[in-house]
Amino acid sequence: MNNRIDNAQLQARVTSAAAAAALVQDGTTVGMSGFTGSGYPKAVPLALASRIEAEHAAGNPFRISVWTGASTGPELDGALAKANGIEFRLPYNSDPIAREKINSGQMDYFDMHLSQVAPMAWQGFLGPLDTAIVEVSGIRADGALIPSSSIGNNKTWLDRADQIILEVNRWQNQALAGMHDIYYGTALAPGRVPIPLVRSDDRIGEPWLRCDPAKIVAIVETDAPDRNLPFSPPDEGARAIAGHLLEFLRHEVARGRLPPALLPLQSGVGNIANAVLSGLVTSQFEDMTAYTEVIQDGMLDLLDAGKLRVASATAFSLSPEAAARLNDQMEQYHSRIILRPQEISNHPELIRRLGCIAMNGLIEADIYGAVNSTHLMGSRIQNGIGGSGDFARNAYLSIFVTPSTAKGGVISAIVPQVSHVDHIAQDVQVIVTEQGLADLRGLSPKQRAEVIIANCAHPDFRPALDDYFSRAKNGAYGQQSPSLPGEALSWHQRFMETGTMKP
Amino acid sequence: MNNRIDNAQLQARVTSAAAAAALVQDGTTVGMSGFTGSGYPKAVPLALASRIEAEHAAGNPFRISVWTGASTGPELDGALAKANGIEFRLPYNSDPIAREKINSGQMDYFDMHLSQVAPMAWQGFLGPLDTAIVEVSGIRADGALIPSSSIGNNKTWLDRADQIILEVNRWQNQALAGMHDIYYGTALAPGRVPIPLVRSDDRIGEPWLRCDPAKIVAIVETDAPDRNLPFSPPDEGARAIAGHLLEFLRHEVARGRLPPALLPLQSGVGNIANAVLSGLVTSQFEDMTAYTEVIQDGMLDLLDAGKLRVASATAFSLSPEAAARLNDQMEQYHSRIILRPQEISNHPELIRRLGCIAMNGLIEADIYGAVNSTHLMGSRIQNGIGGSGDFARNAYLSIFVTPSTAKGGVISAIVPQVSHVDHIAQDVQVIVTEQGLADLRGLSPKQRAEVIIANCAHPDFRPALDDYFSRAKNGAYGQQSPSLPGEALSWHQRFMETGTMKP
Repeated sequence: MNNRIDNAQLQARVTSAAAAAALVQDGTTVGMSGFTGSGYPKAVPLALASRIEAEHAAGNPFRISVWTGASTGPELDGALAKANGIEFRLPYNSDPIAREKINSGQMDYFDMHLSQVAPMAWQGFLGPLDTAIVEVSGIRADGALIPSSSIGNNKTWLDRADQIILEVNRWQNQALAGMHDIYYGTALAPGRVPIPLVRSDDRIGEPWLRCDPAKIVAIVETDAPDRNLPFSPPDEGARAIAGHLLEFLRHEVARGRLPPALLPLQSGVGNIANAVLSGLVTSQFEDMTAYTEVIQDGMLDLLDAGKLRVASATAFSLSPEAAARLNDQMEQYHSRIILRPQEISNHPELIRRLGCIAMNGLIEADIYGAVNSTHLMGSRIQNGIGGSGDFARNAYLSIFVTPSTAKGGVISAIVPQVSHVDHIAQDVQVIVTEQGLADLRGLSPKQRAEVIIANCAHPDFRPALDDYFSRAKNGAYGQQSPSLPGEALSWHQRFMETGTMKP
Repeated sequence: MNNRIDNAQLQARVTSAAAAAALVQDGTTVGMSGFTGSGYPKAVPLALASRIEAEHAAGNPFRISVWTGASTGPELDGALAKANGIEFRLPYNSDPIAREKINSGQMDYFDMHLSQVAPMAWQGFLGPLDTAIVEVSGIRADGALIPSSSIGNNKTWLDRADQIILEVNRWQNQALAGMHDIYYGTALAPGRVPIPLVRSDDRIGEPWLRCDPAKIVAIVETDAPDRNLPFSPPDEGARAIAGHLLEFLRHEVARGRLPPALLPLQSGVGNIANAVLSGLVTSQFEDMTAYTEVIQDGMLDLLDAGKLRVASATAFSLSPEAAARLNDQMEQYHSRIILRPQEISNHPELIRRLGCIAMNGLIEADIYGAVNSTHLMGSRIQNGIGGSGDFARNAYLSIFVTPSTAKGGVISAIVPQVSHVDHIAQDVQVIVTEQGLADLRGLSPKQRAEVIIANCAHPDFRPALDDYFSRAKNGAYGQQSPSLPGEALSWHQRFMETGTMKP
């Protein structure tokens, strides 16, 4: 067994998860590591959940505010939510138990642009941060921290928190050391300067996290895997979406609107995104790069195939098989994967400069191209906006992908009006479903509606969309974006009442 | 009379407006200068409108696509729209005749983020540009162009157009020469580098517009004023809004969340914005700066009072009195006003770096803080999103101001759900009405709703909003952002049917 703590002074602060959890007080705010199920603390939150359950059983109140990078794992969000221990949560959640608490009104949740969490915390807009609980893969002799499988907001939590609890996870591969690039050049306005990154490959910071040793109140040793979920293989619909999208990219290259190596890819997580990445493995495109949030299985495939020169992200999000592959051959990926703080991986300045090709999923889009990524029927949160706003607004090309229907065909992904807006039509340039692709660049709202209905809607819903659009053009208050407010959200109301959007 | 054309070769291309207009063909795209009623061509568009009317009278089709910086004047948008000469328009319009053509379905209009027009044109996403018609205040011996009272997208139109028509307007003050800063360092990805601007004061470019003389097919001399509209003096409501906002800014400085000189101000145009700027004249704040789109009367007042060190913008938007004052004392403002291309004045990289305080108006906000800046009753366009998205998304502080009611009290500016979304709740940190101020930073949707209804809604509508929110919390599909899709837009429907949002 390796000793991961190479600093005697800090070694003396090793304690149990329960003792560490006892240092967190009711009503305080805790900044945790973790991004898409990697690099989150796995022992202290569980111990804290037990402590909260005991306090509640004794009739004592105990709830905290939890800030993270993005989603975490069942040992963190799941356990704390189950214990009714989370009063307030930001900036992203995908845990099913926490989601249920939020949607039943038992937990407040502020769903944020992921690039804005660190600056807003630093600006003091989110209130004080009492405790940081951060997983690392080791501690160096000089006290610097070797980051784990995600960076997220760790730099900011370590900087801002009054006290720090570290988890040193020996499950994490020691070859992670050196893959990270922690940029310490951000500042509060008016002291901000250009961020000196011009290619996805650039390293602009340091490989270690700085940490004031005086603030470290406990260190807990763990040996626990990240939450790595299996991917389902792409189905026919996902392959059709990937096919339309790859044809579009080839066409753009042929027209001279994209370079032959494309531009840095950003890809959301999920089966369709993975199908697109798989499609790129056998494509004509060479020497590609990725500037994205997470490295999923498809990105590893592209690296293995020699198609992807470098992948820059803030976290891994892998299936168990891919995680094993990565761990076995970590040295091979060492120079070709860079993990950065999420304020850098998602920074508008850098996304705009690099000219990313952004590919994200959606819940629904409307006939004018506005996109809802977060709320079912306008009110029930699924996960959160995450980094999709950072990328879609600033990308060279902003692409959204979705099957044209959901829930076995009773929900249309194309609706008269979205029930909640995360991405305004100006930020949505291309929509792809298994039915086809809508290229919306340079079109007015009514022109967009024609293309979206014709190319993207499922045939089961297309006549009803045509009918709505046609009646809106006769009855609306204005003809820029014709809509019928009394009917625009009736598909959602119908689903809530009858279980289907179909009449 | 000064001769403004100091180049003999180009002087030979001086011709009449009618002759220049004859060089524009049916079905082509024309990029015009002009931003908020300043610096737009005043003679050739009028001559083109006459020609279009004659062609229409003769039974011939004649319509063009018009691209500009932002809004122009009656001699451009008004005349061409009246002649039914505009097929397609981008990126912003405030002309009443053009607005009517758009809302009656006779003109297609693509309402864009102002920062994205130049890059998207260059990327080829908007199609080819046949002709540029650009007003300048003079032509130098070396052929470089001395810009006029706005920059807008002129650099891009001159670069991209196949042929160029110039209007040299001797009404424009010759002292404008040297106030402009044209940055030629932008590029297509993957060749983009950091934009080297770190303070509102920085000059990073050249004072003149480059122009290939071989593309200049006609030059027309004019002597015509910009469209400068009078401001109404602030009413009681505007003064109350300014009061709430200034108290908030003082509070933020006292808490250490803003520096004593604030941060670079961005301000939309209009009476409320002007009232806020007037309030700053007598405030405690010194050595302020502005990094904004337009310089309106209140900005000149702040410069005159010695409160504002520098104002950076892309255009002037002044009352006739302020325009006269500016013209009389142009030398005095020379080093303290900088006009830049709108891709720079509105660039996300720079707005985020400078940490602007963004203050914009709105049409309506909903109880969760989403903002509609553009569409009345969801479908009728008022003006356009303009630069509000560039600033609100990237600002240090994003503030929206509005009276709590419109149309004499029958429309509430706070509604259950906005009928169109331009700014998602994540991009709206503060809402101010004459009723009060809602500080939404760090709040979940339900927490935002409590504050917006209590602090911002008009008392006439507050009980109905409370009632909706309360019933939504019981009947919604989820409790993240409780809404009732069957009722959420009923206030708009009621207004369309009865002329009031009140039951």
